[in-house]
Amino acid sequence: MRNRIKTLQKSLGESFDGYLVTGETNMLYFTDFQGATTLLIPKDGESILYVYGVNYEGAKANANNCRVELVEKGKDALKKTAEEVIRQKLKKLAFDTMTFQAHQKFKNALKKTAKLEAKSEFVWRLRRAKEAGEIINIREAARLTVEGMKTAYETIRPGLREREIGAEIEYTMRKLGSNGVPFETIVASGPHSAFPHGGCGERKLKNGELVVVDIGATYKNYRADMSRTFIAGRASTRQERLFSIVEKAQDAAFRKMLEGTKASKVDATARDIIEEGYGKSFPHGLGHGVGLEVHEKPVLNPTSKDVLEAGDVVTDEPGIYIVDFGGIRIEDTVLVKKDNPERLTKGLCFLEKS
Amino acid sequence: MRNRIKTLQKSLGESFDGYLVTGETNMLYFTDFQGATTLLIPKDGESILYVYGVNYEGAKANANNCRVELVEKGKDALKKTAEEVIRQKLKKLAFDTMTFQAHQKFKNALKKTAKLEAKSEFVWRLRRAKEAGEIINIREAARLTVEGMKTAYETIRPGLREREIGAEIEYTMRKLGSNGVPFETIVASGPHSAFPHGGCGERKLKNGELVVVDIGATYKNYRADMSRTFIAGRASTRQERLFSIVEKAQDAAFRKMLEGTKASKVDATARDIIEEGYGKSFPHGLGHGVGLEVHEKPVLNPTSKDVLEAGDVVTDEPGIYIVDFGGIRIEDTVLVKKDNPERLTKGLCFLEKS
Repeated sequence: MRNRIKTLQKSLGESFDGYLVTGETNMLYFTDFQGATTLLIPKDGESILYVYGVNYEGAKANANNCRVELVEKGKDALKKTAEEVIRQKLKKLAFDTMTFQAHQKFKNALKKTAKLEAKSEFVWRLRRAKEAGEIINIREAARLTVEGMKTAYETIRPGLREREIGAEIEYTMRKLGSNGVPFETIVASGPHSAFPHGGCGERKLKNGELVVVDIGATYKNYRADMSRTFIAGRASTRQERLFSIVEKAQDAAFRKMLEGTKASKVDATARDIIEEGYGKSFPHGLGHGVGLEVHEKPVLNPTSKDVLEAGDVVTDEPGIYIVDFGGIRIEDTVLVKKDNPERLTKGLCFLEKS
Repeated sequence: MRNRIKTLQKSLGESFDGYLVTGETNMLYFTDFQGATTLLIPKDGESILYVYGVNYEGAKANANNCRVELVEKGKDALKKTAEEVIRQKLKKLAFDTMTFQAHQKFKNALKKTAKLEAKSEFVWRLRRAKEAGEIINIREAARLTVEGMKTAYETIRPGLREREIGAEIEYTMRKLGSNGVPFETIVASGPHSAFPHGGCGERKLKNGELVVVDIGATYKNYRADMSRTFIAGRASTRQERLFSIVEKAQDAAFRKMLEGTKASKVDATARDIIEEGYGKSFPHGLGHGVGLEVHEKPVLNPTSKDVLEAGDVVTDEPGIYIVDFGGIRIEDTVLVKKDNPERLTKGLCFLEKS
């Protein structure tokens, strides 16, 4: 693992003499520990992780690349952090994210000794380019996700409830090594499948209905994301036609997932194929980055300014959604490379159960 | 269900002529729909829910108490909301929560036509007092959680991995009706149990070790939260002594969970019992509110200013944690009442497997 904190410190250049991290996942990224309140990274010298009592012993045992500081009972972590900023005479501090209320409190505590500027891009630049070790973890999360999808395929049958299928999927992933689900499992049947976020509820599957399954596993805090659409029974001609369009769009976009390609262009590749036949039935972006979070940089949609880079891990998930009929989505987690992009999730790409 | 939006509108009084909701769970609370971007509640007239294309059809089908407005591709939801604020000539707008960056953007888009003030307490006042229908849902989430805990009790044995036990617990809850886990399941064994957030990892249980199990189920978006501590094998005298102290502290605090009691006093009731024997080994607050989120108002800790009210649903979760030895936590979700508080989770309060 490269020294992420050192890389961040270097990127501060002459503009800043410190960086404040308050985003939970960003603190995890830098320290391998989840459950702290703030992480102060001075441009020079040691980083300090501020932790309340509940997680103090855990942080001392498990946090890396920083000194762990206890925030005493009744003391405010932001105020304590501001005291250290003043003590170290830091004058220009960048930060990742803060609520408006936290920003007000922190600013007041600084007593005009330091300027504050929102610069989440300093962290995203690092988090976006996945290291070899991160890709190993995402690959394992993807493997577990595919196992969950196999269970979905094997389990789906008319009469079962969406939630019952969700239970089997999650159980498989968990038993095989998943540390939990990175987002709510979707098993959306019949009319529910027409909504991209169609839930996983009490509805019973009926014969011949579309079922969108959108699931993920977690491995060592890294995530994967995969969707397939199955039919509980035999497919109609219309269902088959829609499926083949989505499949074609997904594959065409996949082939464009190369270093240097504009994210908006990859989106357009899939969107053009869908719109040719089905107009405005694809109401969401093509995809998003995946890593410690299931939605991160880059963004793949028609208005994205991002350009793909080797080491990006992104989803490729076009869909067609027709209210009162149903929806079809096919999604893989893809590793962007210079030449040949790689599907980290793959297989099971058929509509009907054989 | 009382009309929550009307109640909020009334509470604005003369100070505000509108309220902006951007908190995901707050939007769910008012509209029964999750997946919108902003909810604008003018003091008079119709509320407007702003939704991007991905969730637009879902919102039209499922959102209540508001008009649903599509945020077109490439358009910014906050800017669109600001345009409506200007159009309606709203001058004093309160809001629940916003990042610093979103606040800046929204403020700029308002072009000095309206004042903005953070007032999350307007929503918390409502969300904290649970309605009868909400209590029914929390009760069901609690019932499912207890079923998960029974599985933990039945499954725990030396040689199994923490994660394997977690898989069985979650599977039981899901099969019986849970819509997912509201927080990461904790099965923390041996030295891991000495950390309040001890995870659920690859460690194999050893004979005679403490295992802290902290789990929750979800029912119709409402949550429950419960912890028990078991032993994989026979308890030592020391383990038994610690367990009986935590049990005594938990029960004493429970009896104080009555309308009108200061939250800090309830915390002190448990804390005094633990500190008498074990000093500073209880490094977290006694509890927190539970509802649509697993951590909400009120707060029960030594510095809390909250006073308990009938209709509060809170956790009662004292613990003793000794590094290199282990930890014990006993937690129930409790309904605060005028006279007799009620444990919504209960039973299974013993250390050793019989």
